Amino acid sequence: MQGRIACANVLSDLYAMGITECDNMLMLLSVSQKMTDEEREKVTPLMIKGFRDAAEEGGTSVTGGQTVVNPWIIIGGVATVVCQENEFIMPQNAVAGDVLVLTKPLGTQVAVNAHQWLDNPERWNKIRLVVTREDVELAYQEAMFNMATLNRTAAALMHAFNAHAATDVTGFGILGHAQNLAQEQHNEVSFVIHNLPIIAKMAAITKACGSRFGLLQGTSPETSGGLLICLPREQAARFCAEIKSPKHGEGHQAWIIGIVEKGNRSARIIEKPRIIEVTPRGAGTSDNSTTTLNLDGTC
Amino acid sequence: MQGRIACANVLSDLYAMGITECDNMLMLLSVSQKMTDEEREKVTPLMIKGFRDAAEEGGTSVTGGQTVVNPWIIIGGVATVVCQENEFIMPQNAVAGDVLVLTKPLGTQVAVNAHQWLDNPERWNKIRLVVTREDVELAYQEAMFNMATLNRTAAALMHAFNAHAATDVTGFGILGHAQNLAQEQHNEVSFVIHNLPIIAKMAAITKACGSRFGLLQGTSPETSGGLLICLPREQAARFCAEIKSPKHGEGHQAWIIGIVEKGNRSARIIEKPRIIEVTPRGAGTSDNSTTTLNLDGTC
Repeated sequence: MQGRIACANVLSDLYAMGITECDNMLMLLSVSQKMTDEEREKVTPLMIKGFRDAAEEGGTSVTGGQTVVNPWIIIGGVATVVCQENEFIMPQNAVAGDVLVLTKPLGTQVAVNAHQWLDNPERWNKIRLVVTREDVELAYQEAMFNMATLNRTAAALMHAFNAHAATDVTGFGILGHAQNLAQEQHNEVSFVIHNLPIIAKMAAITKACGSRFGLLQGTSPETSGGLLICLPREQAARFCAEIKSPKHGEGHQAWIIGIVEKGNRSARIIEKPRIIEVTPRGAGTSDNSTTTLNLDGTC
Repeated sequence: MQGRIACANVLSDLYAMGITECDNMLMLLSVSQKMTDEEREKVTPLMIKGFRDAAEEGGTSVTGGQTVVNPWIIIGGVATVVCQENEFIMPQNAVAGDVLVLTKPLGTQVAVNAHQWLDNPERWNKIRLVVTREDVELAYQEAMFNMATLNRTAAALMHAFNAHAATDVTGFGILGHAQNLAQEQHNEVSFVIHNLPIIAKMAAITKACGSRFGLLQGTSPETSGGLLICLPREQAARFCAEIKSPKHGEGHQAWIIGIVEKGNRSARIIEKPRIIEVTPRGAGTSDNSTTTLNLDGTC
């Protein structure tokens, strides 16, 4: 999973520009000197396999890279494409009246941390009143699944639905990346986020932890998050419906989370954003996307 | 210097294929968490500057990359080019009768280690009978200068002198890279290395250390080493003369170090290779290249 997630994260930079084909990938790996030989020999090939598998799923392949020894494990890579002008969408053309669509739920950092706390009684005691162990297991699975999902379908649909700009959501959190994207716009626009789709129960955890994650403030780092896309209002609902279609494979969802208005190229979250609890698919409950997509009133 | 060396090392993979123009570079940097804030704020911008400066010298520029925190410092990068068939030379076309040319002296690892030992009395005692402190300082400067030198001139001359194959010499040492190159040849050839151009006094150090470096065996790792090039015999001497020309800038040298003969795609160093002591330019002695280029009898 680690390898898959790393590869999905690397490719995401291309996908955010609406590019669906990658010509070449390099894998960069640092193997931990602190692992035993046995650990290293088990773990390293699996990480490489995951990375390669995700590259293959993306229709590309890993032709090189570099491996080094290091105290910590690091995995990452490079994705390269040479393409025509019409194959990419410069992330600069949002207009007032557009809406903001997000293609993966937030909360990966909280889910991964909470999962580690299952084995840490002191930490666990701080959140056990708001979540069950099963909630955390399901959230962790959901986070892993989402992180390992390529944003390639979203990239393809950006063209079909006339996207004006997009970015992938990673280390700066939803707000940080929204701000970065807003700054790049040709028009004098700002982004206002009204809804936060979050893996179920992760909002409760972040509240129980005194907002240490910054999840509701939009600053919790995400790994291999979704695309944040500026779409014409009349296209956004169709985008959200289309990405769920079984023809694009399983597990894609998207939410309308905000609007583009006239402004000074900044981004903000409204004071009391609506939290959309995204039920992990492992939970076996009915499809939650109907609910969530209705929340904003447009789709 | 560290930044410059890293950049030269990254570009070297392109240069080894006779490519002289790089379209784009990424810089990958890990900043050490063990540094004080002051160290980090002083050192990091200098490393970045060195990397960028060397990229500029190579006629390219760094347009992106990634910076992370890590226990150790890491610096590296990616060089990308899209080019025509005639712009690169596949490293596969050596023929029996070619000669092997090397464009930087060996011994960077020994020089860097010996320099650290200046402050380590126990280590220093092992080598103080064979070198002076000044020898080591000069060798260290020479090693740094060589590591920071781009192999771009050599790449350009590969075309002018009809090179049949080349590789850059880095972590596997001269013999390791010669073996790798030999394995890739279309013809049934082998590489035989007769001469080892080595930064002055580094051969003495490696002997004093009981061959722990493997320098005379060809296995001492090099960082940002020279190109090992298979050239037609009649072109090699002219290549070595041309690369020294002031019109290509200061400090380039090349040595004929061996021959290509019929064989099973392997590489070896003869039993008693001739050690060419490459006098550091800082030593202020007369030009050593006349001597060295005569050693092999062909140029």
